[in-house]
Amino acid sequence: MGPGEGASELDRKNAFELGKRIAERGWVVLSGGRNEGVMAQVNEGAKSAQGLTVGIIAGGDDRGICAAVDIPIITNMGSARNNINVLSSMVVIACGMGPGTASEIALALKAGKPVILLTESQTSKNFFQELGGNKVYLATSPEDAVEICASIMQA
Amino acid sequence: MGPGEGASELDRKNAFELGKRIAERGWVVLSGGRNEGVMAQVNEGAKSAQGLTVGIIAGGDDRGICAAVDIPIITNMGSARNNINVLSSMVVIACGMGPGTASEIALALKAGKPVILLTESQTSKNFFQELGGNKVYLATSPEDAVEICASIMQA
Amino acid sequence: MGPGEGASELDRKNAFELGKRIAERGWVVLSGGRNEGVMAQVNEGAKSAQGLTVGIIAGGDDRGICAAVDIPIITNMGSARNNINVLSSMVVIACGMGPGTASEIALALKAGKPVILLTESQTSKNFFQELGGNKVYLATSPEDAVEICASIMQA
Amino acid sequence: MGPGEGASELDRKNAFELGKRIAERGWVVLSGGRNEGVMAQVNEGAKSAQGLTVGIIAGGDDRGICAAVDIPIITNMGSARNNINVLSSMVVIACGMGPGTASEIALALKAGKPVILLTESQTSKNFFQELGGNKVYLATSPEDAVEICASIMQA
Repeated sequence: MGPGEGASELDRKNAFELGKRIAERGWVVLSGGRNEGVMAQVNEGAKSAQGLTVGIIAGGDDRGICAAVDIPIITNMGSARNNINVLSSMVVIACGMGPGTASEIALALKAGKPVILLTESQTSKNFFQELGGNKVYLATSPEDAVEICASIMQA
Repeated sequence: MGPGEGASELDRKNAFELGKRIAERGWVVLSGGRNEGVMAQVNEGAKSAQGLTVGIIAGGDDRGICAAVDIPIITNMGSARNNINVLSSMVVIACGMGPGTASEIALALKAGKPVILLTESQTSKNFFQELGGNKVYLATSPEDAVEICASIMQA
Repeated sequence: MGPGEGASELDRKNAFELGKRIAERGWVVLSGGRNEGVMAQVNEGAKSAQGLTVGIIAGGDDRGICAAVDIPIITNMGSARNNINVLSSMVVIACGMGPGTASEIALALKAGKPVILLTESQTSKNFFQELGGNKVYLATSPEDAVEICASIMQA
Repeated sequence: MGPGEGASELDRKNAFELGKRIAERGWVVLSGGRNEGVMAQVNEGAKSAQGLTVGIIAGGDDRGICAAVDIPIITNMGSARNNINVLSSMVVIACGMGPGTASEIALALKAGKPVILLTESQTSKNFFQELGGNKVYLATSPEDAVEICASIMQA
């Protein structure tokens, strides 16, 4: 999960690397599916390693969907689809920060899902660690995030 | 789309055959994903031909999901997820009839999607043809339904 | 529940009368809330008798909402909000017919809610009586529909 | 908006006072409608001043709804209904903090809605001010929150 238009250059680079490494592990990438920012890059990264990609689309048709999404699920539910994103994920990796991403992290914690934060914002780390306790993990790089993810799924 | 517990023996047999033939065409099967009736059989049929299966789950966790579903999307939205089923489908094939299936056909027609009916109920055929006009197709068998589907997608 | 732009003159007249009589009973009118067809008229009718009106809005902002809706609930969920309409209603009265209305009747029956049909289409009556059995009631006029509704709620 | 079971004594006291003062202004109180914590108290407070209360219910029936909710909207959507809460509100007041409340604040900011924070957590204030900029207001008391709300609506 991560911002669209508001993503930084680092967020985009991290997202591509995340997608690539998730696919290399044989896991499915699930994202918001839009052709912007972190959503676009994580899917591109996954396809660069022949991964399978699912996009939970906020809109009601196929406009704006990233071409690297194999399976678009059209919800027409706007941001309410963020809850589907997290319920359908075994682990949530948040790459960057913004209002949509923050809502996904909070919804994930509400549902008891583990969340891995990959962000430079110390304020965000402080807040979500206070909010989510030991369900929140801090990653220092895409590699580290995928390693943490593997540990969580083995546990 | 089709009933769960309320499915007849013929509905189940047709659903398995539909899943198999859809998979043989290389198409993805999308269903409500529950381990009952038409939903269970269409996924079993698809996997018998190495197809890819997506299940849009009404519940909030993985209980009751058909094991033949490759990609479960957990909505926790109950029957409101029926609208996601039809928006995410290029063509809707209704196998059998029941309140949930009827809602999916109606939502599909509302969204302008083509619907193929595979049912023995003449009352249902009459109603949906009156409701949906030339968006509604009548199939006499799973083979016929898949043929109609191919024609629609070529058009 | 009833069609927007597709409503007939009779549907609109019946909807106004329904809204008025529901309000006179002291009941709350809940509708799709759009400023078109049956939705507009049932709210206008209710306000003509100082009723309280709730609109479950398909869109994401206040555009197109009927001015006679006191309490607009903004869902941004398109037709998926039809399930909220029926779950939030004690009794569903369907005035006229169309794909959206048909989906609401089917979703209501799926949820075990009683449905009163006020329509001239014999095909629709046949279908929903076959689908819903004794949960489906046929009304001959707005007055009759409200009387049936009162009987259901007393039972 | 605010936590259910996780609400502190101060959150509950503040919520009652908020409901009372909102009702005294003639505004409608909209909440998650559950009979717990902030949701229960804000509705009780509003009814103590003869206000009108709307509850957007996460569940699929009337179990657990606060008796002080006049108009329950049954969504059966779990936490996805949090997006409806904020889209249907002119201003969001967050009383206390928790994962569900955090998701509502984030969804409100995503939708461009003003948010007033009434919480003792400095970490929360820091985070949401960084996330939402000038859409986020800090209140020191229920009275202050309602005053800020009045200023926003006059602007």
